[in-house]
Amino acid sequence: MVKTIEWVGGKVIMLDQSRLPVDVAYIECDNYLKVAEGIKKLWIRGAPAIGIAAAMGIALAARDIKAEDFESFISQLEPAIETILSTRPTAVNMKWAANRLKALLNSRRDESVSGLKELLVEESQKILDEDLQVNKAIGMWGEQFINDGDTILTHCNAGALATGGYYGTATAPMRVAKEMGKNFHVIADETRPVLQGARLTAWELMQDKIPVTLITDNTAGALMQRGEINLVIVGTDRTALNGDVANKIGTYSVAVLCKEHGIPFYVAAPLSSIDFNIPSGDQIPIEERGSEEVTDVFGKCKIAPEGVKVRNIAFDVTPAKYVTAIITEKGAFKPEDLKKLSGVEAEIDKLRIKIRK
Amino acid sequence: MVKTIEWVGGKVIMLDQSRLPVDVAYIECDNYLKVAEGIKKLWIRGAPAIGIAAAMGIALAARDIKAEDFESFISQLEPAIETILSTRPTAVNMKWAANRLKALLNSRRDESVSGLKELLVEESQKILDEDLQVNKAIGMWGEQFINDGDTILTHCNAGALATGGYYGTATAPMRVAKEMGKNFHVIADETRPVLQGARLTAWELMQDKIPVTLITDNTAGALMQRGEINLVIVGTDRTALNGDVANKIGTYSVAVLCKEHGIPFYVAAPLSSIDFNIPSGDQIPIEERGSEEVTDVFGKCKIAPEGVKVRNIAFDVTPAKYVTAIITEKGAFKPEDLKKLSGVEAEIDKLRIKIRK
Repeated sequence: MVKTIEWVGGKVIMLDQSRLPVDVAYIECDNYLKVAEGIKKLWIRGAPAIGIAAAMGIALAARDIKAEDFESFISQLEPAIETILSTRPTAVNMKWAANRLKALLNSRRDESVSGLKELLVEESQKILDEDLQVNKAIGMWGEQFINDGDTILTHCNAGALATGGYYGTATAPMRVAKEMGKNFHVIADETRPVLQGARLTAWELMQDKIPVTLITDNTAGALMQRGEINLVIVGTDRTALNGDVANKIGTYSVAVLCKEHGIPFYVAAPLSSIDFNIPSGDQIPIEERGSEEVTDVFGKCKIAPEGVKVRNIAFDVTPAKYVTAIITEKGAFKPEDLKKLSGVEAEIDKLRIKIRK
Repeated sequence: MVKTIEWVGGKVIMLDQSRLPVDVAYIECDNYLKVAEGIKKLWIRGAPAIGIAAAMGIALAARDIKAEDFESFISQLEPAIETILSTRPTAVNMKWAANRLKALLNSRRDESVSGLKELLVEESQKILDEDLQVNKAIGMWGEQFINDGDTILTHCNAGALATGGYYGTATAPMRVAKEMGKNFHVIADETRPVLQGARLTAWELMQDKIPVTLITDNTAGALMQRGEINLVIVGTDRTALNGDVANKIGTYSVAVLCKEHGIPFYVAAPLSSIDFNIPSGDQIPIEERGSEEVTDVFGKCKIAPEGVKVRNIAFDVTPAKYVTAIITEKGAFKPEDLKKLSGVEAEIDKLRIKIRK
């Protein structure tokens, strides 16, 4: 499996996902502005992956700061952090990663500036390393929803490429189910406009020899109507405390179709993507992007009239009532139980959805 | 307004819609096989337009037949008709046009073969000429559903380009509303895979200076959720006697979203697209097309991994229960009333939906 992002020799190396599956090319970022550019231009995308990228970008920014003391160091680092966070507003993982690094720095104010810089490099690597474990745990809690012979629909890419490691988030239950010997089939929505389903999900599942069929986003409803979809698993860029789920545009339509057809709709959500600070989805900022993603497919094929007006809303919010379960590294939960996850472990265990008793 | 199809000097001239909006180019067909190729390859598309094309193709096929008597003429014409009808299975208009021409021939068995050939040319021209009137009537019965200030979503292209004339079917209520001075805004779903919304609907509405915004198919749900869509009007390739509507893939998803949001869902359907011979939509043959329409956007931009498996279902069936009204040239009706349209005019008038009493 190709690596999404790595810290090598003081540089951040990221797979340029905007060129997949035509080219497998890597971009070297030796300063944080290049990392910010990569996040903005979707060289790297996927909530967990851009969380890791933000952390590494902050470590790069820190390295280039000239400061003698903690206050001066922090005051120079802050604007760089803001620049990175401003690239994409919807996913909360970048903010989560930045807060984690800032909390670490604040707890080590007595360190030398060079020591602080080193800490940031180590912590961003730790975030990357933990990502694999988190996603594996999502897979282990989520595989129970996949039965032998199932056909699973997914939207966008919440796969390995959206994370730092092999399992991915929405694909983690699939990869664990495969390790357990279950047979299933994946339907990948192509996911216009940026086509992460066609370019990334289909590609990475084919690499792993997981059977996958590509459809246009328009086809999901017809397949559900024909009884050809057993369950849906998607990822999330930010989930609110009440269980409202922001994810790639079109996810809400899939959820409504699931309700209409009685198909379970699961969301794979590492805790880093759950925003415990906002009560509901209507407070999640929704990114709107440029029209050229719609009018010029893959950055080169013009498919619409010159000068046409476009609305390119990048995400939508699926209200909690459409969500069957949210699968985290701590277990699968009903969306309304997210707010209870800060409780003690024995209480949390009672909330876990367990199909196999 | 450009002409979709014309009979000029013994040839069928069709606008090559597969190249719009990049090129405005015409293709000359001097034999029926070229017309069949044009229908198959979507140089011409849209249920009413391919009905006209089929009629003209049959007239071309007839012209090249060498026969001395009616029986010989018909027996040679039949295989050509079958070839034309086999190009696309879902729309019923080609069959409707062929049946109309065959009935005409059967009623004039005493004509000379050259007279029969002339009759077919005249009748196919008549089908084209009537199309404009039919669509204008759809517009006049349908404009009542459009209020000043409305935003109307449409899917695929059931516009002028889908017909022989100016009004189109789904766009006819819009064009009549515009003639009446109403202000409204159109949202065009781009309509993957063949992008008729982006390439054709946006283009023709821009030509007419009707305000239009292009969105990906994924965005319709989010706009409905935000309360930004007042009504939906789509066309149909074949509507069954019970009011089930076959139309471009993705139409069903739009209809389900309309139900979820309490948004009226209208279908503009010339009587030539209503199949009074089949009781319900599950008997409508649904065309599946090649994978390259999904994997290679606009025939040239590869957007998916080499060798990926694809399902390219070209149409879906929206059950009558999702349809607010079917707008025909005889009036707007509840889908369940279609079966009563063969009654006497006074009875039909009682069934008409009239918002302005």
